[in-house]
Amino acid sequence: MTVLCVGSVALDSVETPFGKADNVLGGSGNFFSASASHLSPVQLVGVIGNDYPIADLRAKFASRPIDLTGVEQADGASFRWRGRYRHDLNVAETLETHLGVFSNFRPKIPDQFRNAPFVFLGNIDPRLQLDVLTQVNKPKLVACDTMNFWIESRRPDLMKLLERVDLITLNDAEARQLTEEFNLVKAARWIMNHGPKFVVIKKGEHGAFMFTQSSIFFAPAYPLESVFDPTGAGDSFAGGFMGYLARTGDLSEASLRRAVVYGSAMGSFAVEKFSVDRLLEINGDDVRKRVADIYQLVSFEQDLA
Amino acid sequence: MTVLCVGSVALDSVETPFGKADNVLGGSGNFFSASASHLSPVQLVGVIGNDYPIADLRAKFASRPIDLTGVEQADGASFRWRGRYRHDLNVAETLETHLGVFSNFRPKIPDQFRNAPFVFLGNIDPRLQLDVLTQVNKPKLVACDTMNFWIESRRPDLMKLLERVDLITLNDAEARQLTEEFNLVKAARWIMNHGPKFVVIKKGEHGAFMFTQSSIFFAPAYPLESVFDPTGAGDSFAGGFMGYLARTGDLSEASLRRAVVYGSAMGSFAVEKFSVDRLLEINGDDVRKRVADIYQLVSFEQDLA
Repeated sequence: MTVLCVGSVALDSVETPFGKADNVLGGSGNFFSASASHLSPVQLVGVIGNDYPIADLRAKFASRPIDLTGVEQADGASFRWRGRYRHDLNVAETLETHLGVFSNFRPKIPDQFRNAPFVFLGNIDPRLQLDVLTQVNKPKLVACDTMNFWIESRRPDLMKLLERVDLITLNDAEARQLTEEFNLVKAARWIMNHGPKFVVIKKGEHGAFMFTQSSIFFAPAYPLESVFDPTGAGDSFAGGFMGYLARTGDLSEASLRRAVVYGSAMGSFAVEKFSVDRLLEINGDDVRKRVADIYQLVSFEQDLA
Repeated sequence: MTVLCVGSVALDSVETPFGKADNVLGGSGNFFSASASHLSPVQLVGVIGNDYPIADLRAKFASRPIDLTGVEQADGASFRWRGRYRHDLNVAETLETHLGVFSNFRPKIPDQFRNAPFVFLGNIDPRLQLDVLTQVNKPKLVACDTMNFWIESRRPDLMKLLERVDLITLNDAEARQLTEEFNLVKAARWIMNHGPKFVVIKKGEHGAFMFTQSSIFFAPAYPLESVFDPTGAGDSFAGGFMGYLARTGDLSEASLRRAVVYGSAMGSFAVEKFSVDRLLEINGDDVRKRVADIYQLVSFEQDLA
């Protein structure tokens, strides 16, 4: 099955202790698509300016099942982000953000995308996320992401959105901010009481929790010896998660658990190189091997002693 | 089999967002013993002052297989620690530390303890940890803990100790400080290159890694809805880990992995109440249930799709 993603299509400039990259492909939409496309076809909706290296984007995504029909070109500058990581790669320091055409983005879902069974509403204004939901036909699963800025400035809209989605992915700090509960178990319960059936709380290098009404699942981040650039790890996680669900079409708990592990695997690839480079290098065998490695990482036999 | 623990027997005064406790049983030796004693007999070696409520300690440990013969009473004040946790329960703020008789502690291993097959050298001066090793007879496994203070002030002795132990437990910050490697995989490899066959890196609420020459295992901390007081979680983890190994006498990787999970389980009990209170309330069924819950928390089936 297909997964529809509405997200940012940006240019990132990143500095880490290991190198720097300027104006490379970035944004939640790109990371999500590069990741999910290993598992299912992706339909991407976003906006770019006149200055975007669209030929480069098309070339890089050419061999992958990513439909770029929904990436609209608008007059103006593309969304650019410049950031830096120091030794604690878990913390991004934003140096510059230029929203450009992204600040007037009004997602238009192409007709041929409206029946996508899996919908991922990337981190944009919750009013726009709500608007996207009026443009799609009864998806099997709708998931959204959000961030501190929207939690602060658009809480009423975000709360309306929560009632309309099946699942939300957010990081631990965002979960705490949204719910005003420090404890993540309580925070997840609060969120589930406000709409979503499932809550995925991402903790960066510390892994991710998935909460359902009756269970908690945890998958660690894969412990890499070299983390090169953490940018896009969370969006790649979401891509692996949604891509896996779209591939199987199975929303059982067993399947959702595997989806979290695929998310963790894809997040771990994303951080091995700048931009979407590593995500575009790997193949299905690499993905299966990483999932198997995560299985080994946490597996133990209970004894009854 | 029996586990010998050399550690602190202290009085803690703790304030958390949920309450406060004054002069309650604390110290690495007490937490380790209360924890490990659910799995194997414990021999505790430590020192207390004239002011220690030894009758209270004896009464609390009376029903548990903890031999207190090695807890020496010395002239002076007991080791006291006063600390506070705010909402981020992962960070302890030390308000007062009075070493008292602990500052002149010279562990004397009673004759009947010298053949203990499992030895845990709690967080004390590495010179004393080394000295303990001259007093024991070929243990099956020796593990040590340490802390930032010794890494800074006693590095040469600590490096000698590393050559003599099979396993070290330390937290992520300490691993980074000891090895000057930010990446924990590299840090663990550095440590294994300097002696220990096994390295356990504790990350508090974010779980624990166990590194061997050929594998990495990870166990999450159990996500509790109410963490009451994190004091002693790491020592309780060590107690669960060593207690499990001592119970089975099995040093295979499968057994070491289960030991990490028992460590995680015992750490999660420790934080549910002040002091060793929760560790002394629970029984074997509670422990098995918590281990089963951790199993459920991380378990997923691989698919070959």
